[in-house]
Amino acid sequence: MSNPSLPDHYEADGWENPLRSALDKRLPRIAGPSGMVIFGVTGDLAKKKLLPAIYDLANRGLLPAGFSLVGFGRRDWSKQDFEDYIRSAAEAGARTEFRENVWQRLAEGMHFVQGNFDDDEAFDRLAATLQRIDESGATSGNWAFYLSVPPNFFSDVCHQLQRSGMAEAKGKSWRRVIVEKPFGHDQESARELNKIINSVFPERSVFRIDHYLGKETVQNILALRFANQLFDPLWNSHYVDHVQITMAEDIGLGGRAGYYDGIGAARDVIQNHLIQLLALVAMEEPVDFTPSQLQSEKIKVLRATRPVEPFSKTTARGQYTAGWQGSELVKGLREEEGFDPDSKTETYAACTLEINSRRWAGVPFYLRTGKRLGRRVTEIALVFKDAPHQPFAAGTRDTQGQNVVVIRVQPDEGMLMRFGSKVPGSAMEVRDVNMDFSYSEAFTEESPEAYERLILDALLDEASLFPTNEEVELSWQILDPILRFWADHGEPEDYPAGTWGPHSADRMLERVGRSWRRP
Amino acid sequence: MSNPSLPDHYEADGWENPLRSALDKRLPRIAGPSGMVIFGVTGDLAKKKLLPAIYDLANRGLLPAGFSLVGFGRRDWSKQDFEDYIRSAAEAGARTEFRENVWQRLAEGMHFVQGNFDDDEAFDRLAATLQRIDESGATSGNWAFYLSVPPNFFSDVCHQLQRSGMAEAKGKSWRRVIVEKPFGHDQESARELNKIINSVFPERSVFRIDHYLGKETVQNILALRFANQLFDPLWNSHYVDHVQITMAEDIGLGGRAGYYDGIGAARDVIQNHLIQLLALVAMEEPVDFTPSQLQSEKIKVLRATRPVEPFSKTTARGQYTAGWQGSELVKGLREEEGFDPDSKTETYAACTLEINSRRWAGVPFYLRTGKRLGRRVTEIALVFKDAPHQPFAAGTRDTQGQNVVVIRVQPDEGMLMRFGSKVPGSAMEVRDVNMDFSYSEAFTEESPEAYERLILDALLDEASLFPTNEEVELSWQILDPILRFWADHGEPEDYPAGTWGPHSADRMLERVGRSWRRP
Repeated sequence: MSNPSLPDHYEADGWENPLRSALDKRLPRIAGPSGMVIFGVTGDLAKKKLLPAIYDLANRGLLPAGFSLVGFGRRDWSKQDFEDYIRSAAEAGARTEFRENVWQRLAEGMHFVQGNFDDDEAFDRLAATLQRIDESGATSGNWAFYLSVPPNFFSDVCHQLQRSGMAEAKGKSWRRVIVEKPFGHDQESARELNKIINSVFPERSVFRIDHYLGKETVQNILALRFANQLFDPLWNSHYVDHVQITMAEDIGLGGRAGYYDGIGAARDVIQNHLIQLLALVAMEEPVDFTPSQLQSEKIKVLRATRPVEPFSKTTARGQYTAGWQGSELVKGLREEEGFDPDSKTETYAACTLEINSRRWAGVPFYLRTGKRLGRRVTEIALVFKDAPHQPFAAGTRDTQGQNVVVIRVQPDEGMLMRFGSKVPGSAMEVRDVNMDFSYSEAFTEESPEAYERLILDALLDEASLFPTNEEVELSWQILDPILRFWADHGEPEDYPAGTWGPHSADRMLERVGRSWRRP
Repeated sequence: MSNPSLPDHYEADGWENPLRSALDKRLPRIAGPSGMVIFGVTGDLAKKKLLPAIYDLANRGLLPAGFSLVGFGRRDWSKQDFEDYIRSAAEAGARTEFRENVWQRLAEGMHFVQGNFDDDEAFDRLAATLQRIDESGATSGNWAFYLSVPPNFFSDVCHQLQRSGMAEAKGKSWRRVIVEKPFGHDQESARELNKIINSVFPERSVFRIDHYLGKETVQNILALRFANQLFDPLWNSHYVDHVQITMAEDIGLGGRAGYYDGIGAARDVIQNHLIQLLALVAMEEPVDFTPSQLQSEKIKVLRATRPVEPFSKTTARGQYTAGWQGSELVKGLREEEGFDPDSKTETYAACTLEINSRRWAGVPFYLRTGKRLGRRVTEIALVFKDAPHQPFAAGTRDTQGQNVVVIRVQPDEGMLMRFGSKVPGSAMEVRDVNMDFSYSEAFTEESPEAYERLILDALLDEASLFPTNEEVELSWQILDPILRFWADHGEPEDYPAGTWGPHSADRMLERVGRSWRRP
């Protein structure tokens, strides 16, 4: 669906349109003159996410006139092949309506350069292509390089960009690099990777994509906490008993063996998405929402975060076996195509973190993620202590649990509060009820797709939603001791697909008198 | 609709059934052997509320076997006339299905005694009737006297009950009196009235009906505040800017001139309903929910409550004139039948109260009530202070107001929280959203009608929901200075029917930078 508040055609004057800001200052900003080079454009991510997002941005009028999209890859493609490929990706994956006039203007700026990452000549051709485009005037020498490639190629690509001179911006123009996870597999490798990238691009030109941070409900955490008076007084160890951060998926790992086997759930999800959610939920108020202030608060809270030991009791990991996912009988991980039949890779991971600060001391943060769980849901649940005293007679509150505030990240984005209310009737009985706020019911505005938001932000040099090298390294520092313990102690516990993970995960909370929410 | 959790027939063994409590201890208790005498049984209240409520209690199995209902009045009625009158009232007004077998058992215990309140002989006949019924064994000498009569008859009836010996309980039996508002028209007259009643009935045998306290959502205030951990931390002057307690009615006063003219909105609603709501919202936690502990906390908070001066600016009153109520053109008060065409009676009243306690110092409580307002609604709104600091850039919160927690008493009973949330889109914009909890959606249980609840409670000697003489006198003490000021200063301001009251009410809040909610 197109955004009705935007003009009905692709604006030739793009970002400079003074009317746009005069009409409504709340409209998103439009990127300035620029282009983007995608490495790994034939990959799954580019096809399913990046190219549709770029088309949607164009369709919404948020890309500059003359925006250039350059692909680099091994295939022997003409410009027309490249255009056809993007068109089919956009037609299949775009959220906005496909419009021929928008497409034509966008396609004019498309170019494809054939080559391997170790091919100097190919990169020289790419450099020449960018220069030719720059000389035509529309891009002003501003380029973003999107590295949609496995991390073992980061080094090659970065060095080629440096060697060929493309990494260096001339005059007032800019060069930026956008990278995708995994950002290493432990703190040391993350440092190596950051060193390679930062040797070519200064940190302020590096945009690491954690697409969870592009989600509306994740950004809404900041609005809820800091624009209101209602929540902050409750947001501390006086009232919060513990916090559960959950990313549950119902899908399995068929087809993802190459990436996932040997990596596992903790590295794939906890290190980036869940620890970032923890930082946003737990951090102190930033001075303002400039990237540097926001990052500084996230870094502060991550520095105070530690995994709780003994890991034999405070963590859990599992691997799904065959089971019923709804009405479908699905394979276990070790039967999935491409996985080692003896794979020890965990598909479920849970851990206990603590934050050593005045606000959070004594409040455990339980993080869990898994594949092939009961249902797909991502949420942050603040579970409250019981009221310090209950003046109600015994027996009137038998079915009441702890109060909970839930921020639902997906699906059905919104917020929920669970608390006790009197059951209608002459007797006094208290029972839990839910008070609900649904994003989609409250707003007619469409939520932009996370990749649209993040690509536009990178072009706008708006770095708030991108984790820095320091955040990435701190996340690994939190997770590494657990990963080392797991490597030295046995294997993940089996759990049948369609359940809520291994028994050890339940025991992990039972031993401290708590239990996981069944969202 | 009948309550499915109760037996399908009127239980002959009534309150003694041990199975009932064994089956479900949360079921309401059943009244013990007893009867009720209603004075003023031919009045509007008895016909529309009391008699249907008694039938419903019988139908739900909550009245004892052999319950006796005795009417006293001037009409020359036979037992059959009385039965027919009650049957038609029950058929018209009961909430539960009419069932012949329940009716037959209830009707067996009905008696009517003809007489005036100054007729000694009639009261002697009444006493003889009660004695005869007691001797038959079903009532065990336990009687409640319901004074559904204007307060100027309280004295006569009480003295007759004393003179004839009916007020005095023998042995282990009990005698109680149930009275309806108005409980006087100022503190002095309330004291007089209490003196008369208490000269005959000790205070623990007096049950004053404020039917608002019988409403589920009013009782739920206690559950919300004291069974949960989420709300109490916010429930004080650190976070609450002010509180608005509103009872708005859309109906006019046609047909109520006899009661209302010269009384007005403040005496009719603020003195009882709204000040009681204030007490429940503002009081400290009671030791337990026994009547004495609950009343003791209500009295404590009422003792600390004062009207804020100068009344010329902190209060407002109005009288409705002709206007459009929805699509209907309605009369002004002075054109209503029976009202003085020069009536100065206010149909809208608003005032500012303060509570001198650590919890509430500096938080104004604004109370308002009116007839012929925009819509029918009763609610308590806690309006929160702005967050002490807003890290969001100017312009992102233009449309955000203060956070609000609303307890909706009627209609659509429930709770609502209003707070700022991020508007979907690439820009950061914060807009108010509502998070909602609806009693009727959350519970399948039926809410008992307020009169059912209160009549049963009086028979059970459960006094929690009845204001004591001290509460009544304190309420008048709060209101009296305002009433005296109004008596000495001019007249109520006109407001057209269908609006939200007089301009002075708006100015009352505007002068302190606030405004009334439009519920």
